[in-house]
Amino acid sequence: MTPRIDALQYANWSEKVFRQMREGRVDAVHVTIAYHETFRETVRNVERWNRWFERHPDLIFHGKWASDVARARAEGRTAIFFGFQNPGPIEDDIGLVEVWHALGARFMQLSYNNQSLLATGCYEAEDAGITRMGRAVIAEMNRVGMVVDMSHSADRSTIEAAEISTRPIAITHANPHDWAPALRNKKADVIRAVTQAGGMMGFSLYPHHLRDKSDCTLESFCEMVARTAETHGVHQFGIGSDLCQDQPDSVVEWMRTGRWTKDIDHGEGSADAPGFPPQPPWFRDNRDFDNIADGLRRVGFDEAEVAALMGGNWFRFFEESFEPRG
Amino acid sequence: MTPRIDALQYANWSEKVFRQMREGRVDAVHVTIAYHETFRETVRNVERWNRWFERHPDLIFHGKWASDVARARAEGRTAIFFGFQNPGPIEDDIGLVEVWHALGARFMQLSYNNQSLLATGCYEAEDAGITRMGRAVIAEMNRVGMVVDMSHSADRSTIEAAEISTRPIAITHANPHDWAPALRNKKADVIRAVTQAGGMMGFSLYPHHLRDKSDCTLESFCEMVARTAETHGVHQFGIGSDLCQDQPDSVVEWMRTGRWTKDIDHGEGSADAPGFPPQPPWFRDNRDFDNIADGLRRVGFDEAEVAALMGGNWFRFFEESFEPRG
Repeated sequence: MTPRIDALQYANWSEKVFRQMREGRVDAVHVTIAYHETFRETVRNVERWNRWFERHPDLIFHGKWASDVARARAEGRTAIFFGFQNPGPIEDDIGLVEVWHALGARFMQLSYNNQSLLATGCYEAEDAGITRMGRAVIAEMNRVGMVVDMSHSADRSTIEAAEISTRPIAITHANPHDWAPALRNKKADVIRAVTQAGGMMGFSLYPHHLRDKSDCTLESFCEMVARTAETHGVHQFGIGSDLCQDQPDSVVEWMRTGRWTKDIDHGEGSADAPGFPPQPPWFRDNRDFDNIADGLRRVGFDEAEVAALMGGNWFRFFEESFEPRG
Repeated sequence: MTPRIDALQYANWSEKVFRQMREGRVDAVHVTIAYHETFRETVRNVERWNRWFERHPDLIFHGKWASDVARARAEGRTAIFFGFQNPGPIEDDIGLVEVWHALGARFMQLSYNNQSLLATGCYEAEDAGITRMGRAVIAEMNRVGMVVDMSHSADRSTIEAAEISTRPIAITHANPHDWAPALRNKKADVIRAVTQAGGMMGFSLYPHHLRDKSDCTLESFCEMVARTAETHGVHQFGIGSDLCQDQPDSVVEWMRTGRWTKDIDHGEGSADAPGFPPQPPWFRDNRDFDNIADGLRRVGFDEAEVAALMGGNWFRFFEESFEPRG
């Protein structure tokens, strides 16, 4: 059977969340272990995950290879894959890419909203594209087997990353801009550049990325998936829910402002609604993946296509992406 | 065929040294990657090794499991296993034990000459045994698969470590104190405690650990091996040469004084001879392991015993030691 994979979550992790992953039959989740953390701070986050793996071996384990997804499915557990939403954990040191791969990191965003040492973020006024260090780091990520993730990067940087990378890249969590015109959502030429180079995009369930936000209907979401798949090919897409379950508002503040400003940046929120928005009722948490699969069937996808979108495509991408090159 | 293993080297690494490992048919070497380095400084040393692995894939690769020794032998390369001579790389954080295991570290000394957070070193006047954190860290090392190495620890601490550890421990590089009464060499009751618990000792070729130092004869060394094997069992011993090839004297200074004193500590040297002593002519470097094998034959070991001492025993110990516990 095809595995079920979610290509992005950042919950306030707990036994409850891990049990819900099992209830939703989610075989693998790419989890964020760093937003603005330094190398050492991110290692501390790995240590926290190691304690969860030690405490809940019946529910979760550290996924490192595509084969771990099949293993998770066979054993009735969820494989947890690590990733960063910002290149902060490699600091200014390209040698840390390989160190992080050894520690199990499999995805790294080249920027998060702002300019980084590697690429421009989607909230900057100017996008100068991939930097000198960015080119060197993409080559190193390609060598060791770490996915270039451009979810929070600006358009030109993303298109250039797709061109420069010798392996397919990903937008793990976003939606098409023409369906919901958030700054974080992706224009057609960006999606085209990524998918035509063999890359993947995960559709986001984060309300700020949805048409009508928390009031978005399942039908609208699934029709958007159908249109996007029709345009760019059904095998280049999956789910990247961006589920931020049970997080206090202090966490969205850390995600948005880190240590880069002393002011408040509301990002996709506003002064009136600074916290996490409520999830739409048809996708509250990990238990609701069946709703999405059902919705995809209702807009006309056949069973093979539903399976591909719910995890088969990500599984193929994992198989191509995580192993080091000879 | 039985593999050839050296359980301790700290050379000034270079292509020359790696080629000599191949000339000496050394299948695996445990190399020191930290004396007094912090976590981050030791990660930097991993990065340096990663560059050597990338530049010299025909000569060396990063060994992580006992099976890598067999692979090295089959491929005509040398598997490099990482270890620390001091617990500095875990700082005050037990979670870093598992992080280091993921990064490939397989040996950690609980102390280096001085008192550490975990145990007493062999140069301290008082030895209070394994500390509270030491007990916790031994249990964690047992769990994840990292060898407790007591080469530079004091007697009581070593005997207690052998008792507390639920896996066999090691003295990777030392000789019997009654043959060469250096502070670093081990008294019979210490060797007994380690070996009776299934542990290993590697015989050192570092002149300060040899009778008559640089003038030690091969015959004297091999007779010492024979007597020790007769007393404690031939299957508990191997070689841990402590080869410090091509190192400038600044390195022995770092090994001895790190950042713990502003004074000069000559350790096993003296003000007259502060640097590295010359190797005995029958063991200059990795090319001379055949001399030792020949010497062992001449003092009466049969071929199976010579093979065990030259690497077979360490191989069995590697097989028992590096895998995490279920």
